[in-house]
Amino acid sequence: MRTLKVALLGCGVVGAEVARHLALHQDDLTARIGARVELVGIAVRRPDRLRPGVPEDLVSTDAAALVARGDLDVVVEAIGGIETAGALIRSAIGHGASVVSANKALIAAQGAELHRAAREAGTDLFYEAAVGGAIPLLRPLRESLAGDRVNRVIGIVNGTTNFILDKMDSTGEEYEAALKEATTLGYAEADPTADVEGHDAAAKATILAGLAFNTRVTTDQVFVEGITGVTAADMAGARAMGSVVKLLAICERHPDGESVTVRVHPAMIPREHPLASVRGAYNAVLVEADAAGRLMFYGPGAGGAPTASSVLGDLVGACRNRLAGTAGSGDAVYRELPVRPMGEVVTSRHIELDVEERPGVLAAVAAVFAEHGVSVDTVRQHRGSTGTSLTVVTHRATDAALAATVEAVAGLSQVRAVTSTMRVESR
Amino acid sequence: MRTLKVALLGCGVVGAEVARHLALHQDDLTARIGARVELVGIAVRRPDRLRPGVPEDLVSTDAAALVARGDLDVVVEAIGGIETAGALIRSAIGHGASVVSANKALIAAQGAELHRAAREAGTDLFYEAAVGGAIPLLRPLRESLAGDRVNRVIGIVNGTTNFILDKMDSTGEEYEAALKEATTLGYAEADPTADVEGHDAAAKATILAGLAFNTRVTTDQVFVEGITGVTAADMAGARAMGSVVKLLAICERHPDGESVTVRVHPAMIPREHPLASVRGAYNAVLVEADAAGRLMFYGPGAGGAPTASSVLGDLVGACRNRLAGTAGSGDAVYRELPVRPMGEVVTSRHIELDVEERPGVLAAVAAVFAEHGVSVDTVRQHRGSTGTSLTVVTHRATDAALAATVEAVAGLSQVRAVTSTMRVESR
Repeated sequence: MRTLKVALLGCGVVGAEVARHLALHQDDLTARIGARVELVGIAVRRPDRLRPGVPEDLVSTDAAALVARGDLDVVVEAIGGIETAGALIRSAIGHGASVVSANKALIAAQGAELHRAAREAGTDLFYEAAVGGAIPLLRPLRESLAGDRVNRVIGIVNGTTNFILDKMDSTGEEYEAALKEATTLGYAEADPTADVEGHDAAAKATILAGLAFNTRVTTDQVFVEGITGVTAADMAGARAMGSVVKLLAICERHPDGESVTVRVHPAMIPREHPLASVRGAYNAVLVEADAAGRLMFYGPGAGGAPTASSVLGDLVGACRNRLAGTAGSGDAVYRELPVRPMGEVVTSRHIELDVEERPGVLAAVAAVFAEHGVSVDTVRQHRGSTGTSLTVVTHRATDAALAATVEAVAGLSQVRAVTSTMRVESR
Repeated sequence: MRTLKVALLGCGVVGAEVARHLALHQDDLTARIGARVELVGIAVRRPDRLRPGVPEDLVSTDAAALVARGDLDVVVEAIGGIETAGALIRSAIGHGASVVSANKALIAAQGAELHRAAREAGTDLFYEAAVGGAIPLLRPLRESLAGDRVNRVIGIVNGTTNFILDKMDSTGEEYEAALKEATTLGYAEADPTADVEGHDAAAKATILAGLAFNTRVTTDQVFVEGITGVTAADMAGARAMGSVVKLLAICERHPDGESVTVRVHPAMIPREHPLASVRGAYNAVLVEADAAGRLMFYGPGAGGAPTASSVLGDLVGACRNRLAGTAGSGDAVYRELPVRPMGEVVTSRHIELDVEERPGVLAAVAAVFAEHGVSVDTVRQHRGSTGTSLTVVTHRATDAALAATVEAVAGLSQVRAVTSTMRVESR
């Protein structure tokens, strides 16, 4: 029986789980692959760190030498970051190894280039773990739905922000307090920027859009708005209309069918929406396709073991291909569809205004909406102890028209403040 | 560019959708496969039937001659039934073609034999559409989770029964009335036996268990109880404890880890269970694995277009393998784990008794439970206008012990009738 040589780059939370599973389930893996998998080296930064269950004699600090051995079948990259990881992967591919990565930032930034290198070298490049943790998502998009036409992918792909928004929804507290709690509980990193500003979700949206529409999307084409601007007032506004606020990654075919839009931003969704009940650190992604209809994939979106599950699945796939002497590079791109800017996305808005209590306010506000060609779905006027508020939910219009409307309404003399404005995704 | 020849057996609801999509999305399929797919023949029983969008000149009635052409790359079987379909698939494989099938009954009955034939011929045998309609399920189990260890698969895999139980739950009506409605609306076939008696779900459970545990399971090893015995009283009992009744397919590793159990039966699940909110003709399957944790797959479980989506995904997969000169037969079995009978399954029960209103009833009932080693989770006594009822929910015990307990309780002089008894799955 043939032995396939595997090297592991990085032995942190994910890498250590991969190493442990490789040892623990060796018999199953051998049976499933039809060959023995041998872990021949683990590159780490801190070799003296204690790693229970990880074979010490395989640990080294020279990642560059490891990937350049020349006899590797598969390299598993679990170090994260862009520059070093990218260079190591290019070297591994150049030396004939297939690559499995969990690195969304790298794939979003350099996917095209890395896929080209893998194709030329005849090796695989898989990264199921980069999006949705343990959830099988990229393979179903690339393979199971390969005979269908995907029109929309909408999902919760960042557990940290989902945990924070969840907290804000259930406690009524402001963003800063919820973030603090998330940090204390380990749901948010010490520097949470990549999560809370939406960059992590945007990298995942970039990857999802490429697979869903078979077109190249780059991170700078993705509209990103994080959750740092979400307020307790936004959450209360959502609650009042039977909705909840989620940070969504949305990849859609534009109505013209010949272009796409890709965006990450907080949005209100109805409580009966399938994504509304996704709690805490879980991820869920809806995929809408011509023939399949609407599918949902749900599961743990992060963490060592869940991420390792996806990495190991990719590893088995790469090993099977290696053994069969084939390599589908995993690149699904064969098209160049224009990616439209956020202003052209068709969406709707929830707008809450603090207004003066005198006749004619509603007429003035309605006139502004009409001027901008934005049609109104519902208006609700509420007289409270602190003043009068006006809640407007629009019909669908371009994001640019909606933004201009909000700006113009804010300039009205009768409007004291725009207390909340948020996009609404009802389906 | 190479052309791959595809034949279609059957042009009913599913077959016609496959033919239409092949014509409609030819460019995309060509790009995704890297070769042209040419539909060279469609075998039907009634050639004179009108089939909009299906090329008439390809239609013939001689399926046997079609699969024996010898130049076919892939045969798509969408005729259903076991004997004829099985013979045609064997012939197709024998003549060197890969096969895509949507036929759960056939695969459950002859999967082992057909996989052996495919392996020997070096062709593929795929059947994603056989379980869960459009939902990518078998490929994720076989590939995405190939590096993990699956412990449990639990799901709603039959839309007809789910629709009927849903109706019973929302209207309070009896089974017969709900079935009539399902038939009128087209959710149940004229002869609904295979669905309502659980055989359809059992075939799917057979396939799921084989993939999940890499072991051969045969249909006769699957415990099957349909929904014809579910009463309005059962539904009311479920409602009273915040639960709902679903027909579940459950594949589990036995606590000993070295054997498995596979079963289909109605069960009460809590309303907050992820499967409780699955409505109408939708399907959903939970997969629990060591590293991944709990994943859920959800989507349309039947219908022409959704089923065609899965068939086409398999077709693209088979074509890609054809082109690469490889064939993973798709068989995941490499073990022979014993399949334990229903009596040894560990589960729990909800039991509702109509009892005489005199002291000592509870003591007598409790004594029977104790005698059988079945521990009680909760007891609720209810005095109504029509008499006194006792509702018992047990802790987990073997199904044999639970069944014996129910029988013994029914024999008590103080118990007038067992008005409802149903298994409970709380997780």
